[in-house]
Amino acid sequence: MAVDPSKLTHNRRLRLGMVGGGPGAFIGAVHRIAARLDDRYELVAAALSSDAQRSLAAAEELRIPRAYPGFNEMASAESLRPDGIDVVSIVTPNHLHHAPAKAFLEAGIHVICDKPLTTTVAEAEELVALVRKSGKVFALTHNYTGYPMIRQARAMVANGELGKIRLVQAEYLQDWLTERLEESGHKQADWRTDPARSGAGGCIGDIGTHAYNLASFVTNLELDQLLAQLSTFVPGRRLDDDVQILLKWKGGAKGMLWASQVAVGNENGLTLRVYGTKGGLEWAQEHPNQLWFTPYGKPRQLLTRGGAGAIAAAGRVTRVPSGHPEGYLEGFATIYAEAARAIRTAQAGQKPDPAVIFPTVEDGLAGIKFIDAAVKSSAANGAWVQLT
Amino acid sequence: MAVDPSKLTHNRRLRLGMVGGGPGAFIGAVHRIAARLDDRYELVAAALSSDAQRSLAAAEELRIPRAYPGFNEMASAESLRPDGIDVVSIVTPNHLHHAPAKAFLEAGIHVICDKPLTTTVAEAEELVALVRKSGKVFALTHNYTGYPMIRQARAMVANGELGKIRLVQAEYLQDWLTERLEESGHKQADWRTDPARSGAGGCIGDIGTHAYNLASFVTNLELDQLLAQLSTFVPGRRLDDDVQILLKWKGGAKGMLWASQVAVGNENGLTLRVYGTKGGLEWAQEHPNQLWFTPYGKPRQLLTRGGAGAIAAAGRVTRVPSGHPEGYLEGFATIYAEAARAIRTAQAGQKPDPAVIFPTVEDGLAGIKFIDAAVKSSAANGAWVQLT
Amino acid sequence: MAVDPSKLTHNRRLRLGMVGGGPGAFIGAVHRIAARLDDRYELVAAALSSDAQRSLAAAEELRIPRAYPGFNEMASAESLRPDGIDVVSIVTPNHLHHAPAKAFLEAGIHVICDKPLTTTVAEAEELVALVRKSGKVFALTHNYTGYPMIRQARAMVANGELGKIRLVQAEYLQDWLTERLEESGHKQADWRTDPARSGAGGCIGDIGTHAYNLASFVTNLELDQLLAQLSTFVPGRRLDDDVQILLKWKGGAKGMLWASQVAVGNENGLTLRVYGTKGGLEWAQEHPNQLWFTPYGKPRQLLTRGGAGAIAAAGRVTRVPSGHPEGYLEGFATIYAEAARAIRTAQAGQKPDPAVIFPTVEDGLAGIKFIDAAVKSSAANGAWVQLT
Amino acid sequence: MAVDPSKLTHNRRLRLGMVGGGPGAFIGAVHRIAARLDDRYELVAAALSSDAQRSLAAAEELRIPRAYPGFNEMASAESLRPDGIDVVSIVTPNHLHHAPAKAFLEAGIHVICDKPLTTTVAEAEELVALVRKSGKVFALTHNYTGYPMIRQARAMVANGELGKIRLVQAEYLQDWLTERLEESGHKQADWRTDPARSGAGGCIGDIGTHAYNLASFVTNLELDQLLAQLSTFVPGRRLDDDVQILLKWKGGAKGMLWASQVAVGNENGLTLRVYGTKGGLEWAQEHPNQLWFTPYGKPRQLLTRGGAGAIAAAGRVTRVPSGHPEGYLEGFATIYAEAARAIRTAQAGQKPDPAVIFPTVEDGLAGIKFIDAAVKSSAANGAWVQLT
Repeated sequence: MAVDPSKLTHNRRLRLGMVGGGPGAFIGAVHRIAARLDDRYELVAAALSSDAQRSLAAAEELRIPRAYPGFNEMASAESLRPDGIDVVSIVTPNHLHHAPAKAFLEAGIHVICDKPLTTTVAEAEELVALVRKSGKVFALTHNYTGYPMIRQARAMVANGELGKIRLVQAEYLQDWLTERLEESGHKQADWRTDPARSGAGGCIGDIGTHAYNLASFVTNLELDQLLAQLSTFVPGRRLDDDVQILLKWKGGAKGMLWASQVAVGNENGLTLRVYGTKGGLEWAQEHPNQLWFTPYGKPRQLLTRGGAGAIAAAGRVTRVPSGHPEGYLEGFATIYAEAARAIRTAQAGQKPDPAVIFPTVEDGLAGIKFIDAAVKSSAANGAWVQLT
Repeated sequence: MAVDPSKLTHNRRLRLGMVGGGPGAFIGAVHRIAARLDDRYELVAAALSSDAQRSLAAAEELRIPRAYPGFNEMASAESLRPDGIDVVSIVTPNHLHHAPAKAFLEAGIHVICDKPLTTTVAEAEELVALVRKSGKVFALTHNYTGYPMIRQARAMVANGELGKIRLVQAEYLQDWLTERLEESGHKQADWRTDPARSGAGGCIGDIGTHAYNLASFVTNLELDQLLAQLSTFVPGRRLDDDVQILLKWKGGAKGMLWASQVAVGNENGLTLRVYGTKGGLEWAQEHPNQLWFTPYGKPRQLLTRGGAGAIAAAGRVTRVPSGHPEGYLEGFATIYAEAARAIRTAQAGQKPDPAVIFPTVEDGLAGIKFIDAAVKSSAANGAWVQLT
Repeated sequence: MAVDPSKLTHNRRLRLGMVGGGPGAFIGAVHRIAARLDDRYELVAAALSSDAQRSLAAAEELRIPRAYPGFNEMASAESLRPDGIDVVSIVTPNHLHHAPAKAFLEAGIHVICDKPLTTTVAEAEELVALVRKSGKVFALTHNYTGYPMIRQARAMVANGELGKIRLVQAEYLQDWLTERLEESGHKQADWRTDPARSGAGGCIGDIGTHAYNLASFVTNLELDQLLAQLSTFVPGRRLDDDVQILLKWKGGAKGMLWASQVAVGNENGLTLRVYGTKGGLEWAQEHPNQLWFTPYGKPRQLLTRGGAGAIAAAGRVTRVPSGHPEGYLEGFATIYAEAARAIRTAQAGQKPDPAVIFPTVEDGLAGIKFIDAAVKSSAANGAWVQLT
Repeated sequence: MAVDPSKLTHNRRLRLGMVGGGPGAFIGAVHRIAARLDDRYELVAAALSSDAQRSLAAAEELRIPRAYPGFNEMASAESLRPDGIDVVSIVTPNHLHHAPAKAFLEAGIHVICDKPLTTTVAEAEELVALVRKSGKVFALTHNYTGYPMIRQARAMVANGELGKIRLVQAEYLQDWLTERLEESGHKQADWRTDPARSGAGGCIGDIGTHAYNLASFVTNLELDQLLAQLSTFVPGRRLDDDVQILLKWKGGAKGMLWASQVAVGNENGLTLRVYGTKGGLEWAQEHPNQLWFTPYGKPRQLLTRGGAGAIAAAGRVTRVPSGHPEGYLEGFATIYAEAARAIRTAQAGQKPDPAVIFPTVEDGLAGIKFIDAAVKSSAANGAWVQLT
């Protein structure tokens, strides 16, 4: 009466490996849930920690069958196995994205990588070249692009419902670094405020890039110039904790981007507002199932995920009916689901499906250039810096 | 280098079976995601459809190794296997909860069952007796009790932060049955408006019980009497689509419960408001990560999941930091996680952990009595009906 | 160069008198601002207090030229003056509405009266008869009907934009009587909880009638039956402080009305929700410039006062552009402005203009019958009481 | 029985004159309501239009006893009358503020003037000097400073409840100039987009100054430098319709100011957010009775006008209880009420009361310098410009 498991090969889950994300690492756990949620992956291999002993212990605790002391061993071994991993997730701190990404791409393994892509433009450009050469899928987990109403916003802009875009305003406000948390042994605060591990940007790299990526994703506009004022409000902190940027987009749109980790009362206040000649859109991450849309001269409409105004671009990444909120993990899982679809297509030797959308290595490079330009502009007391 | 899987028995996933929930069944897919999200279960057996052929095909598509043509076969076979399922999920329409629940309990298998428990009080009472006799865990998926801020509300009431409770107001508003959807072949609308499959209550059973369960869960009050006005607004519909109820709770609190499936503009508007001598709480399911709390004579506070005012009762069922929204699936998954903890404890022969909370078979019986009383009261043109 | 004031008689302000509303009386000051706001009245006579000395002193402080020791003297004297008052405002506690209203009507003077109309049905009926006989304008200050978006809601219902009405839900929530304020010498709490001055209803008369009036005003439905549960939660209080009512409207609509003065965290939470076969409307007094409208199967729209979706019925009582909030005083002033228009029309011997809308003495009688029926129903443990 | 009006001189209303504000001028009507609302003024003289005939006709329609063909005649004549005006309101277009302000100050008459103060820095400086020399009260109607919760915010900052201020973010968003309205004979759009009547700034002068004034008013910070990007999005428009500015405040705080008249979906979206080392405040003009306050590490609080957290600074400008919304006109009226208090104090030869607060001629000069600096910065492609 039981199904023959061998029949399931046409339908098997992708075999996933993970680098980083050991116990206590918030983002590793998030990636594992995201991979599991839609049942498209099974996590079979891992190098969870840079400490070999901890790596093995963590894998056992997480019931991951194949544990490795390091990512290089894992890339080699897995690439040789007939049942080796299809794809690896890289969830290490920022400065440790480049090396494993390079190793797995060179081993012919698809990559899902946390953002920001790298800590330098040169490393990012190297990865772009490698991805192109390898033909592998490379998905960057700018997870907020996974929200259905963000997909809807992007499609509405593309469909011309806003007319020509004039204004693109992005904010990402938090308050968890209002005091000098990094001094008190707070692991998350520690590496995020350390230039050696985060790169030249603090707030700009940690959350500013999310806001920039989201603005680009929704509008499909390319940034032309920026002018930045990076601040470090907390005495003794080594990186910026607040970022204020003027933006000039190609084609004439303008905008501002404000990211802060010292805006008291804000938890994860990522918002995007886009205004064009014909309409306006407003979205807030903390209420992600809603999207405000105003056609010029008409009443405001509250579009909802799965609701009356939802369009196909949102529907294809929606799991439950309207009014049943989806959240952060579902958005993250959508990046995994999209990557899985792309990997299947690649494995089948087919052309990519244009409906399948996820942030790419090129988006990652754009993010690093954005950080780099912002740091330079601020160092020049707010000079305009050309992006390309 | 790989972990020996045999070492993982101390830490193995629970083996899960599923009855109902074949292709097109919304709630079956939700249960599977909920089971998967926290990695505490693996779905290894199923009788997904009452049609044997469809049952097998569906299991294959879902990569479930052991498929059965019916739940009786599944209960017998699994109870005999050394690697048989630990627990079964029952996700059939309402009138098909009782028989499989009985079968699996008698086979010594723990049960997770969708709500409402049964379609009659007698059946519900039989299940209560069976659960008690069997000693098995029985979790009812009143999923809204899984939201962290609902856990917080319950703990705050228990801690006396509201003083003596005076008012308990619950609403559950939808609009998807505003027109006669059941006539157009809409599968969800069809069985929900059919007395043979839903029982004597339509809106009252489908969503009214959720609202009642939530009110009871948060306040820990027992209902004394109710007075109901059930309406069928859509011509030709066979069950109620709107329910308005006056409540008298034991101890003197009063309240109203309004559930509707014809309130145009409402998607899944479950709300709860509780007021006592010392404070008030307000919560809305569509923004589940927030809880309004007003201590009498002080400003309103917006408590958030994971935020500054969150307490342990919320924290232990929280997955991601404040400001990163959790949603419907996470709440559902919490019921599964809690059931898993309870099953582990039962399997280890230990006493239940009072911190582990999930709706029980007794809560299910209370729900059926609530439906029964509401139907009777309404039939008597709004007479007070005693609950116990 | 100056204008000859005698030329202004065609355009003179109405001469207004006031009964009640001396120092410390909140509502008296509100009426005076409301009368002044649109420059259609000048306050020239008053009997502000039942204490003759205080009455005179208060008038002087308020710069009112003609002060009287009592309303009877005022009605007589003013009716004899060539420049006597056109209209009187009655702003005394509830039990003192009837006598002055009668006196001024009999003296041929138009009346603006605070709500509720009287404390008994008999008195209310007598006033209705008197108004009809006298042909005078009688405006009852159910001020919430003055909000532009309430005018809009009423017009939208009348225009059929909601289809046939099914559900009418009204709430009016406050928390200022959560504790026994009347014991501590709080003047407002004192008379509002005293049967001798408020009548048989506490919360039901003070705010329940507002909610009922608003529901009737917007839907233009007549109440058929009600079933009420009145509660007194605060020990020692002599009148109800919480009211829960089931409603059956003529024509088949149903609804609930909840008014409370012990719902901690609520300041002046008057809300109205109306659902029909084709659409839904939702309004909240604390954000009066907004009206939610959902046409069935379409996205929610946020209509705003003066905004894109505003219609003529709202526009004619709007003073400032959209986005510039109007509030409670402006709504109140609209009742005065409408009454002024009606008085002008009456003075000119013209037919009433159907666009001019204000709560009438008949609405006042309906309110008193509503209170009376609710008190009776509750006394009979929640029996249905027929309204007419 | 009547009060002797001669006794009321100790308590008389201030005699008010008005320049500008004839029929069709929105802001003139607003000033008249504001003056009337608290019964501290009577409007007795006016030069409502630059056309003498229209000026006289308008005064008659408005029942203003003394009408003048021009402001110079009015200033001379009123200064000679024993019952001449105490104070004049100047509500002409921007370029016509300076001349009448000068004339009335020189005639020894107090002035209330609409914003922006003038169209050039030189004119503004001249008025500052004149006010100082004359000793007259000069109130500028930056009306948003009249909202009670703005008064509360200012007092909370001054009391140190936010700690040291780090971030001050102001926005003022509208959409009414999204299309080229000025071409279609729209009077308000016409003069606001005409450099000859508005000065060198469009959006920056019309609403940007309001946002800047509000930020300064609440924080009591002085602006050190700004860097601006002024845009004209609508083809053919002669002045800016969008303004994006980086701010450096003295003492180290930073911020952004965004004002737009082409942000589709925004009606009058003035918002202010202030963050310090110890707390954060957020306020939005369209819901002016609320103020969000977060003490660092504690839950968000929703402070309300008249509510539990309201302090004396808000209470002294509050008219009605909490939950009864006040709006735009009440805020405007508070400027008039404060000016009346200041004028009374000046007339009595007393020292100004520090509790009486209104925007002054110095605030007006600061606003003109702000406009001037923004225009210069933008012309220099976003150079930092020093304010003082």
